[in-house]
Amino acid sequence: MRESQAIQRLRRIATSPAALGLADDTALLDGLVLTHDSIAEGVHFLPADPAASVGWKLVTVNLSDLAAKGASPAAALLSLALSGDDAWDMSFLDGIEAACESYGLALVGGDTIALPAGAPRVFGLTAIGRAGERVPLRKGGKDGDVLWLIGTLGDSAAGLELLREDGASTGPLVDIYRRPVPLLAPGQVLAPHAHAMMDVSDGLLLDAMRLAEASALNAEIDLDAIPLSKAFIAERGESLDARLFAATGGDDYALLVAMPPDVDPLSLSLPRGTTIARIGTLAAEGSLLSLSSGGSPVPLPEHLGHEHRGNSPAPMGDRS
Amino acid sequence: MRESQAIQRLRRIATSPAALGLADDTALLDGLVLTHDSIAEGVHFLPADPAASVGWKLVTVNLSDLAAKGASPAAALLSLALSGDDAWDMSFLDGIEAACESYGLALVGGDTIALPAGAPRVFGLTAIGRAGERVPLRKGGKDGDVLWLIGTLGDSAAGLELLREDGASTGPLVDIYRRPVPLLAPGQVLAPHAHAMMDVSDGLLLDAMRLAEASALNAEIDLDAIPLSKAFIAERGESLDARLFAATGGDDYALLVAMPPDVDPLSLSLPRGTTIARIGTLAAEGSLLSLSSGGSPVPLPEHLGHEHRGNSPAPMGDRS
Repeated sequence: MRESQAIQRLRRIATSPAALGLADDTALLDGLVLTHDSIAEGVHFLPADPAASVGWKLVTVNLSDLAAKGASPAAALLSLALSGDDAWDMSFLDGIEAACESYGLALVGGDTIALPAGAPRVFGLTAIGRAGERVPLRKGGKDGDVLWLIGTLGDSAAGLELLREDGASTGPLVDIYRRPVPLLAPGQVLAPHAHAMMDVSDGLLLDAMRLAEASALNAEIDLDAIPLSKAFIAERGESLDARLFAATGGDDYALLVAMPPDVDPLSLSLPRGTTIARIGTLAAEGSLLSLSSGGSPVPLPEHLGHEHRGNSPAPMGDRS
Repeated sequence: MRESQAIQRLRRIATSPAALGLADDTALLDGLVLTHDSIAEGVHFLPADPAASVGWKLVTVNLSDLAAKGASPAAALLSLALSGDDAWDMSFLDGIEAACESYGLALVGGDTIALPAGAPRVFGLTAIGRAGERVPLRKGGKDGDVLWLIGTLGDSAAGLELLREDGASTGPLVDIYRRPVPLLAPGQVLAPHAHAMMDVSDGLLLDAMRLAEASALNAEIDLDAIPLSKAFIAERGESLDARLFAATGGDDYALLVAMPPDVDPLSLSLPRGTTIARIGTLAAEGSLLSLSSGGSPVPLPEHLGHEHRGNSPAPMGDRS
C-alpha cells in the first residue's frame, strides 16, 4: 500500500476539525499544535548513525513541524523501543535530552517497549506546541502569493551521500545531516503574516506541490533562486543538476512560506543569520508545479521527493 | 537494559511538573491528560491475531490509561507502520476506526512510515483526554484507604493461553483478549472521589505494588476478593493458583482505586453492570505488598506481572 492510499483511508476516519483534514503534519486542539513522527532504522536513519544523533533527529524532526505552524515547543511523549544495546540506548537518550533542552521541549511521558530480538529499531515522538496568534496551514495560499524559503536545501541529503560513500565522512554536511536545526524562531516570526507555511521535509518539489494542491493553486519555482549553503556548493556545485538534487533530496529542516506580495519578510524581525530567499509564486493559472531556470522552463524530474511504499522503503523515508 | 533502568534515565530528563515524575502512565498539560502506548508484533500481539483486533487494542490500551485518570477521550495521533500487506493494514485501520468511534476519540493526525522488509509490525498511539474536576494520581493513596478493583482479572491472559494452545480457539475469554473494553465511564465517576487510581495492565500484583510505592505506603490484598468472571472460573476454576494467575497475568483493562474508607463506591452512580470489589487496603505499616487468602498470608509469587528486558521480551509485553 502506498502511503498516499493509507492517508486516504485515514482521512475517512479523521473527520474532526482538529485533524485539519490530515492536510498538514499537525493537528490543532484547544490552542495546542500536535504532531507525531516515527523513525525506523534502515529507513529514516542508518544503522551506523551515532545514537545521540538519532535521538536528536527524532526530536528536531517533530520540532520542525511545530516551527511550520509558528508554535512554541511545550511537551513531548517518547515511544522508546529498548534495543538490547545499553550503551546505544543511553546515548540515544542523551541525544533526546540535548534536543529537548536546546529547544525548551519538556519530555512528559511516553512508553518503553521491547522489540523482538533482531528487529530494527523504531522510535516515535509526539510533540505538542502552544499555538501563536495565527496557525498558518498548507491550504491557506492565495493567488499571487510569493513563495519564500527559509533555510538552505540539500545539505542533509548531500551529507547522507557522503556517509554512504564513506561511513567515516565528517564535515559540515554530515553535521547538518546528523544535527539538523529546526527553524522555530523564524517560524514564530513568520506565522502571523503567512498565508500558508509548511516545513520542507520530503523534498522541496514534492512539498511545494502539496502546498499548491492544498491551496488549490499552482506553484512556480525558480530553481536558480533555491538557497544553497557554501558547504553544499563546495561539495556538489550549483549546476541545475545540483539544484535539482537539493530540491528533491529531502530531510531538510527548511520552511516554505506563502506570503502576500505586499509583505516583505526581510522587514520582519527574523533572527540574525536567517537564510531567506524568494523562490517562486502561487498562481491560479498554470500547472500544479512548474520549474524554471535561466528564464526557461525545466521539466519536472521523475522523483519530486520521498513518498514511500510500505515494505519497499527508499533508504530515507518520509519524515513529515 | 531493563525497562526500569530506562525509566530512571528518562526521569532525569522528564523534570517538568507535567510529567508527573513519570510515576503515572499519563502526563497532564493545560487540562489535558496525555498518554502514549506502542505495541510490537511478537511482543504485545500475536502475528496471527486478527488485524482489526490489533487496531482495537492499540486504541483501547490508551483509553484505559485515560480511564484511570477519569479523563474524557478527545483526540489521538496514530503512528502507522505500513506492513506491505494491504488487506492486513486496511483491517487494522478498521479496528482503529471502530474503537475511536465507540469511545468518541477523534483521530486527528500522526505519521505513516515504512519499515524494512521482514521487520515485525510496530504501532503507536498518543491519546489525549480532557481532565475532569480531579485527576487522581498513583501517589495520592492515604493510610487506611480501601483498595477497590473495577472489572475482572485474568480473562485476557486466560484467552491468550487458549490461543497459544489452539490458534483457532474462540469464546468469551478470547473475545476479551481481542476486544477489551476500557472502563471510561467508571473512571469518570470514581475520579472525583479517589485518592489514587491506575489501570491494571501489567498484572494486579505488580501494579498494586507500584501504586503503594508511589504513595509511600503498603498494599494488602485479599486474593479471595479478586473478582473473576464466570468465563474465567469455567475455564480455570477459582483456586488460589487460578487467583494468582489472574492477579499476575496482565493485559487486563481493570481499574485499581484507593478510596477513603468513608466513601462507598457502590453508592456512586456507576454504570449498570459495573463489576466492583473491595480487594484490600493501603497501610503505613507492613511490607510493600502482602497477600492473604482464607485469612492466612500468602507468599509473593516470583513474577508479579510483566516487566520486560529490552531484546528478550516475554510473549506479551508491558502495555502500560
